[in-house]
Amino acid sequence: MKLFMEPASVALIGVPRRTGMAAWNIMENLLNSGYTGRVYPVNPNADEILGRKCYPSVKDIPETADLAVISTPRSQVARTVKECAEKGIRAITVVTQGFADADEEGKRLQAEIVRIARQGGARIMGPNTFGTSNAFCRFTSAFAPVDLQPVPIGLICQTGLFMAGIPRFPMLGKGIDLGNACDIDFADALEYFEHDPEVKVVLLHMEGTRDGARFMEAAARVSQRKPIVALKTGRGEQSAQAMQSHTGTLTGADQVYHAAFRQCGVIRVSDIDEFHDFTRAFLRVPLMRGSGVGIITIAGAGGIMAIDACEKYGLRLGRPSPETLEKIAFLSPPWQALENPADIWPAIMIARHRIDEVLYTIADAFLADPDIHGIIIVSHAGLLLGAPDIFQRARRFDKPVLCWLYGSGMEQLIDDIEAKGETAVYPNVERAARALSRLREYHGYLRGERR
Amino acid sequence: MKLFMEPASVALIGVPRRTGMAAWNIMENLLNSGYTGRVYPVNPNADEILGRKCYPSVKDIPETADLAVISTPRSQVARTVKECAEKGIRAITVVTQGFADADEEGKRLQAEIVRIARQGGARIMGPNTFGTSNAFCRFTSAFAPVDLQPVPIGLICQTGLFMAGIPRFPMLGKGIDLGNACDIDFADALEYFEHDPEVKVVLLHMEGTRDGARFMEAAARVSQRKPIVALKTGRGEQSAQAMQSHTGTLTGADQVYHAAFRQCGVIRVSDIDEFHDFTRAFLRVPLMRGSGVGIITIAGAGGIMAIDACEKYGLRLGRPSPETLEKIAFLSPPWQALENPADIWPAIMIARHRIDEVLYTIADAFLADPDIHGIIIVSHAGLLLGAPDIFQRARRFDKPVLCWLYGSGMEQLIDDIEAKGETAVYPNVERAARALSRLREYHGYLRGERR
Repeated sequence: MKLFMEPASVALIGVPRRTGMAAWNIMENLLNSGYTGRVYPVNPNADEILGRKCYPSVKDIPETADLAVISTPRSQVARTVKECAEKGIRAITVVTQGFADADEEGKRLQAEIVRIARQGGARIMGPNTFGTSNAFCRFTSAFAPVDLQPVPIGLICQTGLFMAGIPRFPMLGKGIDLGNACDIDFADALEYFEHDPEVKVVLLHMEGTRDGARFMEAAARVSQRKPIVALKTGRGEQSAQAMQSHTGTLTGADQVYHAAFRQCGVIRVSDIDEFHDFTRAFLRVPLMRGSGVGIITIAGAGGIMAIDACEKYGLRLGRPSPETLEKIAFLSPPWQALENPADIWPAIMIARHRIDEVLYTIADAFLADPDIHGIIIVSHAGLLLGAPDIFQRARRFDKPVLCWLYGSGMEQLIDDIEAKGETAVYPNVERAARALSRLREYHGYLRGERR
Repeated sequence: MKLFMEPASVALIGVPRRTGMAAWNIMENLLNSGYTGRVYPVNPNADEILGRKCYPSVKDIPETADLAVISTPRSQVARTVKECAEKGIRAITVVTQGFADADEEGKRLQAEIVRIARQGGARIMGPNTFGTSNAFCRFTSAFAPVDLQPVPIGLICQTGLFMAGIPRFPMLGKGIDLGNACDIDFADALEYFEHDPEVKVVLLHMEGTRDGARFMEAAARVSQRKPIVALKTGRGEQSAQAMQSHTGTLTGADQVYHAAFRQCGVIRVSDIDEFHDFTRAFLRVPLMRGSGVGIITIAGAGGIMAIDACEKYGLRLGRPSPETLEKIAFLSPPWQALENPADIWPAIMIARHRIDEVLYTIADAFLADPDIHGIIIVSHAGLLLGAPDIFQRARRFDKPVLCWLYGSGMEQLIDDIEAKGETAVYPNVERAARALSRLREYHGYLRGERR
């Protein structure tokens, strides 16, 4: 896997002479990414592409490249794989489509390239793939622009879709598109991330895997070190048919995958919002060591929504001790007792306490309470300008604090709060509670609790 | 309701002398909003506030204002309501907290102000409310900044939270915060929106209502004219307790509300994302007249996710007719047949058709097909730059086209696409399918189908 992820030199076979938009030129994309390794384009019809000397065949390249990336028409792929193996190349990414994702001839060709590679001692990524991307060495074999940012997220997927990224979510520090996964499979990719200090959360997009046992072994090992968040698609009958013609994967019953994920501590998501939500929680706040939630809200209605959300996701309202309630009692107007949820608006509007005094006092008291294992703050984003240290202070307690911040036009402020890395902000309280519940579940898994 | 929503003059009783951040000064907020009606501040301790002559009592104001907004301490509210009624004011908003939302004394005071108002022929909004906002006449009685944008959305809620808006979502053209709803209730607010040409979608945030029968009558009437999208909070036991101390509402069993909403054609949501998602769909695309979905995707994996999502939300893959498939067949490379989902990448990458040719041909063919009632487009946002007229063209068919657009850094492009008002773009395909399903359900309700 290291040759695929961190190649010092790469042969690009089938590079088109076209460049620019709609050329889908891998070399152009790679050079634009800032890759500084050695790049050898192969195209028998060109002497030079993008100012680089072009080779008629992989055999003519003056060294044995770490990685070959093949994007020739499918009819030439088998011959090219053979040449690569003969040249001694050990890592081959086949970008080309039209294999098990297509017709019977494609299936036959896919089996053939696997056989050729095995004989030659090479491994194959793909076919039908964007290949690999690594922001930490500015490498990518994608034919479309990839958002390379050195975030500690490792992505394993079966589509280029995630390589292209999601608005407002830097999705990959390192990405592996398995495509049809004819040889390199999920287990190989997981093993690469297992001991990778640059990756703290692993995201999986999976249509299916052929080797469930090996996947489970690898996933269970990796889960002990870092969370794996998985989007398994193809749940129903209709999508199973479509997958057959996407990556050529036969899917098992969805429940089988579900049970396997649970057993291995893999956190399953049902959509991309959850990738976004859970990854930010895992990267930014501590795990949750119990199910008691403290709610601090600037709006009574927000507290009610927060309770609904906690119940929905298997969490409960923490019961603050008498000592905790005593610490915060002085903030209330006479006719309101602060409890959990702590509706802080009367303390600000009627009792006229400062926002920082109110928020710091309650957050400190709740975080110190043994029955509160995490906090959700519901607030107009603008009010947090009055209590800017709230998340920094919370770090002393090693408990997660997540937020639902509302307020029209507050996008920039919310981005700024997020950028400090001390909390994650969600667009509603359901998503904050859902993320908190996963911090709880993963902690339970690590502790050996049944899920 | 007209006096609350479109007052030509307003008495503001209990305006503080403080101004600026954290003063929560209703008059300051109102003047900043650009309101051009007559404003009469009442404060016995000031001659002038923000350059406006101040009156010692509502009795001293030289006219009978359309609306009085009371934000005095709670102990003075009953006397002030009496003075307003005696002055002949017919609409009174009580902003002050500490009534049924608080202690026994608060409950008693709330009953008293209702009695006083009834005797004097006045109606009360609140207490414990932001009151009303109307972007079309720049009016607001909120004590915090409200995002007034003349969008055709009418909001009825029991919290100021929604008045303050949600990032990236202009939430209200007109807003009514019922607060504790001691007098003016959901039915009154719904009736106001029923014939309001400036409002095309009604959003409800409801903790509970005392008069279920009247609510249902009003909701069923309004639903015939425009969609009502409702967030009913307080689902469980714990939140019912919290609601008691928020707006003093006794909640009924959640299932009772659920059944009532169904019967009246009210579209229930479970979180704010759904407010956002469904409102944009209702405002921008036609209703869906059947359950068959056409999927056009640039990524095979996206097609599979789209099928999963359609199944989840009670939609199905449309079955294109042989004629439809014939119209699009020329786009494929030999080894792939285009069907539904239409995975268009091979047509672009292998067969090298132009993006606009591919997208326009398939969209036109799908939209003309009798078994396809709506379309989901899954694409990298950037590719739509190559087919900019796709949504404009779709309007000929009177069928909804919704999108999931991905791609890192594509926020501005997506905002630009949205701003044209011809489609709604979602951050994942689940949310696009969910919105489509509500366009289908609401159409079924209007047609008298059982839901």
